[in-house]
Amino acid sequence: MLGRVNHVAIAVPDLASATTSYRTTLGATVTEPQALPEHGVTVVFVTLPNTKVELLEPLGDASPIAAFLAKNPSGGMHHICYEVEDIIAARDTLKASGARVLGDGEPKIGAHGKPVLFLHPKDFQGTLIELEQV
Amino acid sequence: MLGRVNHVAIAVPDLASATTSYRTTLGATVTEPQALPEHGVTVVFVTLPNTKVELLEPLGDASPIAAFLAKNPSGGMHHICYEVEDIIAARDTLKASGARVLGDGEPKIGAHGKPVLFLHPKDFQGTLIELEQV
Repeated sequence: MLGRVNHVAIAVPDLASATTSYRTTLGATVTEPQALPEHGVTVVFVTLPNTKVELLEPLGDASPIAAFLAKNPSGGMHHICYEVEDIIAARDTLKASGARVLGDGEPKIGAHGKPVLFLHPKDFQGTLIELEQV
Repeated sequence: MLGRVNHVAIAVPDLASATTSYRTTLGATVTEPQALPEHGVTVVFVTLPNTKVELLEPLGDASPIAAFLAKNPSGGMHHICYEVEDIIAARDTLKASGARVLGDGEPKIGAHGKPVLFLHPKDFQGTLIELEQV
């Protein structure tokens, strides 16, 4: 079921400072910030040869990463996103095995314009897993 | 400086159960466990098309992941490892920019037999970064 690691997402309290860390200190290519109000985040991509890291800053009053940052004020690794070929088939297989899909179980259109689902971290060793159909 | 994402490491309290999650529930290829007493962990690799995920279980009394698991009993994402071409040059550049290298600042031979260093999470938005020379 699992394909490529599409991205690793890191929640950060200050996107400008995080961009400087990755671009200047670590010498990586970092894209310009994109505000995604419908997802409650502003994002930049750290482009690496085999995958990408997304740095996420909360945007608006109901950001999905606000609670994580309240618990981890410096920031931290928030989720890992794997590609799947068929997200409905993946969901149905996972649900049949007892894994919990977050929300109403229906794929949403994610930050990359593709259907995504999130799996309950309690079912996967404390790791929030996003599945993205590519 | 940053090259490929070599791996994402997830600390888990029970490697057998985590292996079942990734192999059976998520349908990924998972290697057989390797005990690495000199690193204080037992590890399996989840092999993905573009990178790998390492699942780490504490081994012995002084495991470097014991404190993390005490704070996160279900487990969680522990660090991300980037490849660099020259770890001494990378270290010197990072130190000159004010970033802190953990330990005595000298590369150690990591779990893959290559020289590695860890960077202080407080300098990188709460993310523990490993650099591995490849």
